[in-house]
Amino acid sequence: MMMQKWRRSGDCIRFGCQSLINLRSKENSVSRSVSGFVNGYKSKGKIFEPNARNHHNTELGRNLGMMMQQYKCFGSASQIQRNPLFASLDSKDVSYFKEILGDKNVVEDEERLETANTDWMDKYKGSSKLLLLPKNTEEVSQILKYCDSRRLAVVPQGGNTGLVGGSVPVFDEVIINVGLMNKVLAFDEVSGVLVCEAGCILENLATFLDTKGFIMPLDLGAKGSCHIGGNVSTNAGGLRLIRYGSLHGTVLGIEAVTANGNVLDMLGKLRKDNTGYDLKHLFIGSEGSLGIVTKVSILTQPKLSSVNLAFIACKDYLSCQKILVEAKRNLGEILSAFEFLDNNSMDLVLNHLDGVRNPVSSSENFYILIETTGSDETSDREKLEAFLLKSFEKGLVSDGVIAQDINQASSFWRIREGITEALQKSGAFYKYDLSLPVEEIYNIVNDLRERLGDLGNVMGYGHLGDGNLHLNISTAEYSDKILGLIEPYIYEWTSKHRGSISAEHGLGVMKANEIFYSKSPETVNLMVSIKKMMDPKGILNPYKVLPHSFFSP
Amino acid sequence: MMMQKWRRSGDCIRFGCQSLINLRSKENSVSRSVSGFVNGYKSKGKIFEPNARNHHNTELGRNLGMMMQQYKCFGSASQIQRNPLFASLDSKDVSYFKEILGDKNVVEDEERLETANTDWMDKYKGSSKLLLLPKNTEEVSQILKYCDSRRLAVVPQGGNTGLVGGSVPVFDEVIINVGLMNKVLAFDEVSGVLVCEAGCILENLATFLDTKGFIMPLDLGAKGSCHIGGNVSTNAGGLRLIRYGSLHGTVLGIEAVTANGNVLDMLGKLRKDNTGYDLKHLFIGSEGSLGIVTKVSILTQPKLSSVNLAFIACKDYLSCQKILVEAKRNLGEILSAFEFLDNNSMDLVLNHLDGVRNPVSSSENFYILIETTGSDETSDREKLEAFLLKSFEKGLVSDGVIAQDINQASSFWRIREGITEALQKSGAFYKYDLSLPVEEIYNIVNDLRERLGDLGNVMGYGHLGDGNLHLNISTAEYSDKILGLIEPYIYEWTSKHRGSISAEHGLGVMKANEIFYSKSPETVNLMVSIKKMMDPKGILNPYKVLPHSFFSP
Repeated sequence: MMMQKWRRSGDCIRFGCQSLINLRSKENSVSRSVSGFVNGYKSKGKIFEPNARNHHNTELGRNLGMMMQQYKCFGSASQIQRNPLFASLDSKDVSYFKEILGDKNVVEDEERLETANTDWMDKYKGSSKLLLLPKNTEEVSQILKYCDSRRLAVVPQGGNTGLVGGSVPVFDEVIINVGLMNKVLAFDEVSGVLVCEAGCILENLATFLDTKGFIMPLDLGAKGSCHIGGNVSTNAGGLRLIRYGSLHGTVLGIEAVTANGNVLDMLGKLRKDNTGYDLKHLFIGSEGSLGIVTKVSILTQPKLSSVNLAFIACKDYLSCQKILVEAKRNLGEILSAFEFLDNNSMDLVLNHLDGVRNPVSSSENFYILIETTGSDETSDREKLEAFLLKSFEKGLVSDGVIAQDINQASSFWRIREGITEALQKSGAFYKYDLSLPVEEIYNIVNDLRERLGDLGNVMGYGHLGDGNLHLNISTAEYSDKILGLIEPYIYEWTSKHRGSISAEHGLGVMKANEIFYSKSPETVNLMVSIKKMMDPKGILNPYKVLPHSFFSP
Repeated sequence: MMMQKWRRSGDCIRFGCQSLINLRSKENSVSRSVSGFVNGYKSKGKIFEPNARNHHNTELGRNLGMMMQQYKCFGSASQIQRNPLFASLDSKDVSYFKEILGDKNVVEDEERLETANTDWMDKYKGSSKLLLLPKNTEEVSQILKYCDSRRLAVVPQGGNTGLVGGSVPVFDEVIINVGLMNKVLAFDEVSGVLVCEAGCILENLATFLDTKGFIMPLDLGAKGSCHIGGNVSTNAGGLRLIRYGSLHGTVLGIEAVTANGNVLDMLGKLRKDNTGYDLKHLFIGSEGSLGIVTKVSILTQPKLSSVNLAFIACKDYLSCQKILVEAKRNLGEILSAFEFLDNNSMDLVLNHLDGVRNPVSSSENFYILIETTGSDETSDREKLEAFLLKSFEKGLVSDGVIAQDINQASSFWRIREGITEALQKSGAFYKYDLSLPVEEIYNIVNDLRERLGDLGNVMGYGHLGDGNLHLNISTAEYSDKILGLIEPYIYEWTSKHRGSISAEHGLGVMKANEIFYSKSPETVNLMVSIKKMMDPKGILNPYKVLPHSFFSP
């Protein structure tokens, strides 16, 4: 036993290792590789086929699907027709792209296309016949200009780690993957501003910054594969949002190419620039439907010397909520993560992942991870210890430990970040990503649990500090009956409480038609007008983000 | 002498008063009132009339200006024609507005119109004949719907504290002031999210939050008059941006009314919501040209218990820059303000404001204010003291003091925040607001000083921590010669170094035509397309933000 229970001794042992975050980062990448996150490894999880029309996962199905021009979204029961106004790829197109990009960056190889057509959960599959790998902005511009003139639909792709089918084709869209555009262009140690190409892998940027004594303002489980361009395009959230805010605040500039090939240079490196409309925000979170992000300028943070991680257990959700309020106030400026999971999530991880065990001695209903990051080792430790002790004395916490070394810290994070991997190993699953008022977060879990009864194992976990619940339902098998019990119930529940049906995952193809649960008709109308103005032929990532009905011919 | 020099004793005395920020806030309001910031007090500063066509400041001139339909921007040498496509107000219009708003909220009184037509510097003046005071969103919607149908131009107005002529009419635009919409609608102590109407005065919100133990994420000199709706519409920066980031990060939702009267409900209260394009960002910083912000939802911060303020002197700018880098790293999570001023700015304040004196014993070339805000009094104090001592030992700092009580802290802030007031008292002045890479910030001051020689007193100060320079030139009198030496030189210099010609003040009417110094033609074209799509008749705040040439009939 390498942990010391602060609850017993009232004395915590802190582990002040400066590279604790880095270690966690390494751990993540490994686990993601194992679970199929990296390099197109294919999950062995079951494939959801809610009705006979969803044939995209078989060879016959793929051909049939193309011919029928029909598509079934996973988990949303909506059907999409291929837009007949889009051109189909022909040999002249391929020749033209080879002329621009060179032969080797125009990929027609079936195996590579299979990977690029498939999302990492193996839930969404397209049938594109062409993968393009531009090396610079000019090539992206030339590609889009051509596709626009030909009305060839495209799907921009980064690390292909999305969870809503946003980064793979729905039908035969040309895939434009920016993975070769992976250079760091500039870093300013005075301002902390990093400028890089969109295809840089998040973890590589973190490694680069580590040598300079800085960290990225975002951190997420997919860091070993996801691209910064994709992070920006999907407005990725993750573990550090509670501390450093969203990408709308930390991204200082972007370069993007619009549907007609125009290059928009918005690559400012300034913290403040009030000269006209701040258009970069249109591209942050629009999931590649308004343009392809090619470069990013982002404000990084000085790497602080003291990182602490506590893993605590609570009897009920109300205690979790109270601890959050207290942590925000008492840990204040050093609080850097506040994550929670319920006992069902813990059991899932314990049952399906090797070498994981519960850091606290007895099973409890809820668990919380609290990370602090600061510049004063002694004070930060004392602050966290005092906070935990106080919470224990108030009866909010029933058990808890503070990581003493890198291995312990990693093992704590492994529990929180291993949930998705464990879920995949457990069989069929339905995955939701909701924002809700903190006091409502666990009510939806309880309500759904009651609604499903023995039909599914409902689990809640996520970024409690940001009001972001990841709600998973693990079932023996996929069925229309279970799906019908979950949707639209879960969306209606969320809408009723003025939550968001997608906190950080985006809408993609999965929830494009569900946007009205979180946005007003007037607002959606304006989004559609902007889309039609900026991409009149609709070639950029079609069928995603906005309801398909607006774009039917 | 109530200050203790830490440089001499190596021992700092900190003042840990919990309401230090509040006191500063009070002090600001008072000083702004005195200087004409509040209640339409009119400055006695000289009026700039660079050529004979600028008659707007005289009665004759105003009438002439209307007839000639010409307008001369202060400090930008551009001429604007009144757009003849706009209707002129008639008695039927007034009757209609009285029907909607009631008689007393349709203002035709000359004195009140004079105030509403004039910006607080008394530099920009319009000649509107009507001021409307809607009480709620529905009334704003009805007003705009009518104005759009009649093609009556409007100018949205909040506290009218802008510095670029953005909040007053250029010609006869109808003024819509949201000052009566000043209710706090909701506050959630768990999430810290405040929802309020656009006409709430920033300081009133701060006072309200203080009772709840929270603070606004922004703080600026005009807090006693400015409205939160105006703050959002102009993307106000201020003193806390270095700590809490820009409004693009902290504003969680807005409600806005577009030109045709449509109400866009984007009033989310969630930290994370990735459902479609995040359209609120279009309204943050677009200076009322795309819609009128009617409600705001904003993430506030827990009020922390320990605030410290140091006032230090440095021999050269390079030292200031080095101290900034070190402060970001060593004060890290508790750094809440990093402001600087040069000796010329200090002299200006000492010469023109009563009761102000230099906190350090001897005159130096540069002065820096460093504020820390944290939750641990002992640790925060020690951290700041250690940092200052180290900086002194390294020779970066030549003198310095830490405020020991509320009065001292206020007197330090009075120097920094009194510069604009002192400037007004000094005679003629030219005022610029630039973002530049930190290492370039003082080069432009030196270059301009050399260029102007004895013609003007060039002063540099501002939010160094954000790379934001306020550059002022004080002269004996306004003249085309001096203006010609300053502009476009200053814009070209900024553009060459990839800076912004408006860090936080916006473009308004003053710099609308200068946008290309900071934005690419492609980006401006897209802005214009968005403006034309959202406000096809161009009635919202015309002649502002975007170059006039795009909207000439």
